[in-house]
Amino acid sequence: MTATPIALGPNHTPLLEQAITEGGGELAELDRARALVWDGDPAAFPDRLPAGIEWVQLFSAGVEEWFDTSVFDRHPDVVFTSAAGAFARSVAEHTLMLLLAGVRQLPAHLAARSWRSRDELAPRIGTLRGATVAVVGAGGIGRELIGMLAPLGARVIAVNRSGAPIDQPGVVDTIPAHRLSEIWSRIDHVVVAAPATTETRHLVGKAELAQLRPTSWVINIARGSLVDTDALVQALRDGTIGGAGLDVTDPEPLPDGHPLWELPNAMVTPHDSNPAQLRGIAFADHVTENVARFVQGRELLARIDVAAGY
Amino acid sequence: MTATPIALGPNHTPLLEQAITEGGGELAELDRARALVWDGDPAAFPDRLPAGIEWVQLFSAGVEEWFDTSVFDRHPDVVFTSAAGAFARSVAEHTLMLLLAGVRQLPAHLAARSWRSRDELAPRIGTLRGATVAVVGAGGIGRELIGMLAPLGARVIAVNRSGAPIDQPGVVDTIPAHRLSEIWSRIDHVVVAAPATTETRHLVGKAELAQLRPTSWVINIARGSLVDTDALVQALRDGTIGGAGLDVTDPEPLPDGHPLWELPNAMVTPHDSNPAQLRGIAFADHVTENVARFVQGRELLARIDVAAGY
Repeated sequence: MTATPIALGPNHTPLLEQAITEGGGELAELDRARALVWDGDPAAFPDRLPAGIEWVQLFSAGVEEWFDTSVFDRHPDVVFTSAAGAFARSVAEHTLMLLLAGVRQLPAHLAARSWRSRDELAPRIGTLRGATVAVVGAGGIGRELIGMLAPLGARVIAVNRSGAPIDQPGVVDTIPAHRLSEIWSRIDHVVVAAPATTETRHLVGKAELAQLRPTSWVINIARGSLVDTDALVQALRDGTIGGAGLDVTDPEPLPDGHPLWELPNAMVTPHDSNPAQLRGIAFADHVTENVARFVQGRELLARIDVAAGY
Repeated sequence: MTATPIALGPNHTPLLEQAITEGGGELAELDRARALVWDGDPAAFPDRLPAGIEWVQLFSAGVEEWFDTSVFDRHPDVVFTSAAGAFARSVAEHTLMLLLAGVRQLPAHLAARSWRSRDELAPRIGTLRGATVAVVGAGGIGRELIGMLAPLGARVIAVNRSGAPIDQPGVVDTIPAHRLSEIWSRIDHVVVAAPATTETRHLVGKAELAQLRPTSWVINIARGSLVDTDALVQALRDGTIGGAGLDVTDPEPLPDGHPLWELPNAMVTPHDSNPAQLRGIAFADHVTENVARFVQGRELLARIDVAAGY
């Protein structure tokens, strides 16, 4: 079988060259390729693609700026795919890290300077085994996270828009967003992974925090506005929850001197659950998968619907 | 079908009562039970068990102190099981926490007091996705850990005594202990989970550390003696490795003022990967599993071989 010729541009990183090869493609010049992996922005995109190009893989997850150009219009017969979903696993890994570090009391351990701290710290250590974790927003990040929580023995309550059951190991219940108010007294910890909308603003506020446990951790990796910062700070100060792990904050950037920087039960990672160097690795995996699908004639991931505008 | 009558003593915690019921047993008085779950020490153990008792589940993982009594000799027809293996998952969870917190640079994040730290921190954040992790010692803890690493996309090199391949998702290679010297230049991170013997003393020493990467994390949850502390401190100071996460140290307890308390790339949790409150939860799971096996007539976990002495 002849390898499928695939072009790469405008940059030629070894990571992406390898990704194409691993997917079953063969690096080729644009004029004899059947597909193009484009790791640049719209400005540098070719005016006219050769007629042989059937598919173009773009680097970004959001493609608004591509719609602002005429690239899609100029190539009505070409299938375009984005990187949507490619970065979910990195954010999920970061989320798991924050949740585990909280439950296992790592911040207090890092502040300790004596083995005698064990008497105070050990009794506070929790586990995700058997713990009920709400994953609010069961999109790409939520689903990746659920897959990571399952082998730890956590019991996941997934919250999505429709309440259609999430069929993954470890999920004990799926709740539709309009019944969110039912979960707070049932859970040990909550992960906020939902999109920011007017409906999800302050999804975790004073009333919700009041129903959590003194050992509960609140993890937010979605958008700062989903958590009421003032109510959270108060709960952290009062010790009515165990702590918070925040990759996003409101306001963002979080100002110097804000209490979240100082509170011993708050962990802040300044919106870096998916830094540039990891995006490159994740995109390479996405390319490998889509090249394999293209080679085998299967449906591509994250196909852009030009007519629908996303 | 009649439920299998199982006695519990000397303590009667709701957790263990539930564990017996969940396994398919029914709580019963000792004289009409077929098995006994014993959550106390040998001193309080009954002199003579009723003739109907076929099996006794003990609480401890190590049973040396039970051999110092005549309990086994007095009941030659009874099967005894220990809690060996029951606590592996808690230690594995702690291990995963330390490794993730290290790779994702949580210690440096917790020390930060400004969103501007992002410029310095974000580029240092790593991922377990695609990372090669050596798990040295593929016993109960190691195997649980491998199950947790797989959904993160880590590539595990397992090291065990024989080199007999570990058949778990995510394991890319199994290396026998006598070929351990081959792994150091191949790996991104190492988890030390092997028993302490004369052969494993200073398994991670100066020569091994020198072959790791500036981004490598060394995690030790086994025994302090497996890592050469002085060599580790030097590597941490020089930045020739990324950092270390230590639940065990040499010496232990780690003295106040030791550099491992102060180094920003060292995390010390004072031997509390498996604190008392988590042992209770883990034992309950073990009881549920063994009760289910007993009810179904299957082989019990962690059967004590009285003749062999363990």
